[in-house]
Amino acid sequence: MSYEEFEKEVKVLGNLEEAVGVLGWDEEVMMPEKGLEARSKQKSVLTKLRHEKLVSERLGELLESIDRRDLDKSQKANVREIERERERMKSVSADLMEKMSQKESEAVNAWKKAKKEDNYELFAEELRELVELKRRYANQINPDEEPYKVLFKDYEPYIGYETMEKVLKNLKKGLVPIVEKISEAEDIEQNAFKGDFEDEEEMELNHELAELLGFDKKNGRLDCSEHPFTSGNTFDTRITTRIEQGDLSGSLMPTIHELGHALYQLGLPEGDYATPRGGARELSVHESQSRLWENQVGRSKEFWKFMLPKLEERFPEKFEEISIQDCYESINQVYEDNMIRVKADELTYHLHIVLRFEIGRALMNGEIEVEDLPEEWNKRMEKYLGLEPETDSEGVMQDIHWAWGNFGYFPTYSLGSVLATQIYREAEEEVEGLEKKIESGEFEDLRDWLKTHIHSKGRLLKTEELIEKVTNEPINSEPFLNYIRGKYGEIYNLELEN
Amino acid sequence: MSYEEFEKEVKVLGNLEEAVGVLGWDEEVMMPEKGLEARSKQKSVLTKLRHEKLVSERLGELLESIDRRDLDKSQKANVREIERERERMKSVSADLMEKMSQKESEAVNAWKKAKKEDNYELFAEELRELVELKRRYANQINPDEEPYKVLFKDYEPYIGYETMEKVLKNLKKGLVPIVEKISEAEDIEQNAFKGDFEDEEEMELNHELAELLGFDKKNGRLDCSEHPFTSGNTFDTRITTRIEQGDLSGSLMPTIHELGHALYQLGLPEGDYATPRGGARELSVHESQSRLWENQVGRSKEFWKFMLPKLEERFPEKFEEISIQDCYESINQVYEDNMIRVKADELTYHLHIVLRFEIGRALMNGEIEVEDLPEEWNKRMEKYLGLEPETDSEGVMQDIHWAWGNFGYFPTYSLGSVLATQIYREAEEEVEGLEKKIESGEFEDLRDWLKTHIHSKGRLLKTEELIEKVTNEPINSEPFLNYIRGKYGEIYNLELEN
Repeated sequence: MSYEEFEKEVKVLGNLEEAVGVLGWDEEVMMPEKGLEARSKQKSVLTKLRHEKLVSERLGELLESIDRRDLDKSQKANVREIERERERMKSVSADLMEKMSQKESEAVNAWKKAKKEDNYELFAEELRELVELKRRYANQINPDEEPYKVLFKDYEPYIGYETMEKVLKNLKKGLVPIVEKISEAEDIEQNAFKGDFEDEEEMELNHELAELLGFDKKNGRLDCSEHPFTSGNTFDTRITTRIEQGDLSGSLMPTIHELGHALYQLGLPEGDYATPRGGARELSVHESQSRLWENQVGRSKEFWKFMLPKLEERFPEKFEEISIQDCYESINQVYEDNMIRVKADELTYHLHIVLRFEIGRALMNGEIEVEDLPEEWNKRMEKYLGLEPETDSEGVMQDIHWAWGNFGYFPTYSLGSVLATQIYREAEEEVEGLEKKIESGEFEDLRDWLKTHIHSKGRLLKTEELIEKVTNEPINSEPFLNYIRGKYGEIYNLELEN
Repeated sequence: MSYEEFEKEVKVLGNLEEAVGVLGWDEEVMMPEKGLEARSKQKSVLTKLRHEKLVSERLGELLESIDRRDLDKSQKANVREIERERERMKSVSADLMEKMSQKESEAVNAWKKAKKEDNYELFAEELRELVELKRRYANQINPDEEPYKVLFKDYEPYIGYETMEKVLKNLKKGLVPIVEKISEAEDIEQNAFKGDFEDEEEMELNHELAELLGFDKKNGRLDCSEHPFTSGNTFDTRITTRIEQGDLSGSLMPTIHELGHALYQLGLPEGDYATPRGGARELSVHESQSRLWENQVGRSKEFWKFMLPKLEERFPEKFEEISIQDCYESINQVYEDNMIRVKADELTYHLHIVLRFEIGRALMNGEIEVEDLPEEWNKRMEKYLGLEPETDSEGVMQDIHWAWGNFGYFPTYSLGSVLATQIYREAEEEVEGLEKKIESGEFEDLRDWLKTHIHSKGRLLKTEELIEKVTNEPINSEPFLNYIRGKYGEIYNLELEN
């Protein structure tokens, strides 16, 4: 047996994953409503087949038979990534996998109903059972580690838990006082993007935006879905956005965000399609790419210098009186009464995450119970954001993630912003005249730089190695906090130095 | 082991097939052009996995362990269908399967180029190799039978080869003299559907038509694609049509045709999803459903009594001067200079098929060679239709099917028309006032009748059994020939009695 045989089998796993991706995209974007029953079965069969192949004896034998000394770096990366996932999944019983998957569907259904009726009790029982299953899952993988730590590795195998914990602690410490200062400062009342826009014309603008940023229709699509997302591979990556009636930024910002994800997928090496080497690193790095485009680019003054004229062209009456500064302030202002994570600004966003991290960990590790969640949630909303949710629907039930069983997942969102800032700082040094280029809509050099240093690497390096190689420093929150202090200090005219 | 375990495994096969169906639909309708490389790999991995599972020892053991006496009719049908396919596929080497699949892709590419450049030589070499591989395939399945017969069973396992042969012989014998008489009769020169139509409005009309015929958006979609097709299952079936600039019937007739296919899929029993019992019978029965709606319904006077006012509503200027008779004649006239199968009327269509059957069989059985095809083609075009193709692109290369390796496939198209007539004759007897109902757009009773007698049966019965049960007679061409004589005799004012 040889490495080639191993790689062939690995590509079967990869193509199964890709096929599930297409089925998922179709489900969200194209599928008629009654298609769900068949679709769930299709996805579940493919996912199970992949799992069976991953933990199969045959793959084990193939791995054993490879002489590691003969491998090049890419081949070593493939062996490392598959071996890691295989070892982890081998310890989990097929029965538990099936039960979790079943329970996740039930929990999602319960969550939808409970959120709609604002009745946490309807969700609590399913969540309790799901939490119990997730604890068993974590226990089967590593009985000697606290469950939340084990679960975190599902989403971030190559960022140390301690690194993540430190980042979140520093964000909390750094951001809470800034939020307080801003809440005492004078409000910005900007509404540059509010107005009535025809759906069709708004979508055309989004298509134009995606194209201007470098999205090629030969390699992808832009559609609408309830929740914006990105799906695909280096040959074909699709993004979605949503229309928020009365607010143009409600579609533009998701488009830029998803476009950042898409450029990552599209920048992966074609020759390594369907192997780990040719796949994207996990959620934090992926999120760094979406946030870099959304925040560092899309929420900058330079970007709106470029973009405002495009808006004026399509909606002249609405935008002729609007200035670049209006756009900039509108897109960055902190809404003090905002309870909802996905509507949060770059700053308060991370306090929403810290809250979820603290509660999720305590729940998973058995320090609090499912029935305590609403209270724990509201307590922290008050403490970190000075807010009191009036309902559980806009409180503890606002996100679907826990119903999906995604415990250990939320921290990757904050890590994404932190990495984005570290990476962008490096890009600013290396891409000549980057600010000017953004002002004039020349995004190619930034795209190329990201492709060279991040996208084309796939999973060649472990995550922390990759970041250190690109930024010459370990993962840390300082650049992000400095960026926030600078930006928000200027916007709110405050002294926010450390 | 038990039947239940067998059925579980069978559903894995079924869901793999369904997933390939979704990937295929997406490829034709939604996929950006550069997605093809990844898509081909995804489909090939799933198809191969299904094949491996079908011929696996495990499935063999499961089949052996089942006590057939304990099974009900549906269970017996599942065992029969899987056993048949398994036995057949077990004899084919994995190596040959892979080579055929590879060669089919190459032949399709060569065909596209050759057709575009009207250069048969560019296609011939690939076709020669493909024919050789198909012969080997037939030989591995059954070395004692002529290859074309073996291949026919890929498309029609449960219609006797002799039955098919007899049908085609009778069609040829019956239709050639009718075509001659019509070519001597006075031309009909009707252009009721010719004109300029906005694409968008034309598609809206097609959506309206589909809905009027009973297509529910909750269970399906209607989109555009280069070649109209149907894909899906009882929960979610999607059809496509195409826009032919300047001819409204160019989209309407494919929509009705595909809708007939879709109603079949949607009428399959939900509880048997992803099993043979819950799947449609093969191509001939499927085609009988599309042609029944397209021809018996869609090319009837009654239908245009109902439909013309809908056309007038959307395109008043175009249709206010057009009569029902104009529509009826336009949609049924025989264009004497038409070389192209997919543009043929209900009558000459089958001579296009007879030609393909005769040549395809001779080629597969080694009586003629690939280099003889153009000449053999043109000879028969002259003989059966009095036509002489000027180029090979509109002659022997007009269809993609041989490049796909589909030898033995074309006869199912004629069988479809023959079955449609037999089935519709029965429906006319059993559905009270069917003509009147079509005139007033009440299609529900016909749909229900078809669902009860054909769709809901899935593969419970073998094909010939199913047809005999529904029509009380064996598969035969007489009803179709009588239908043609009556219809075209009236349209062309000719004596066409037998």
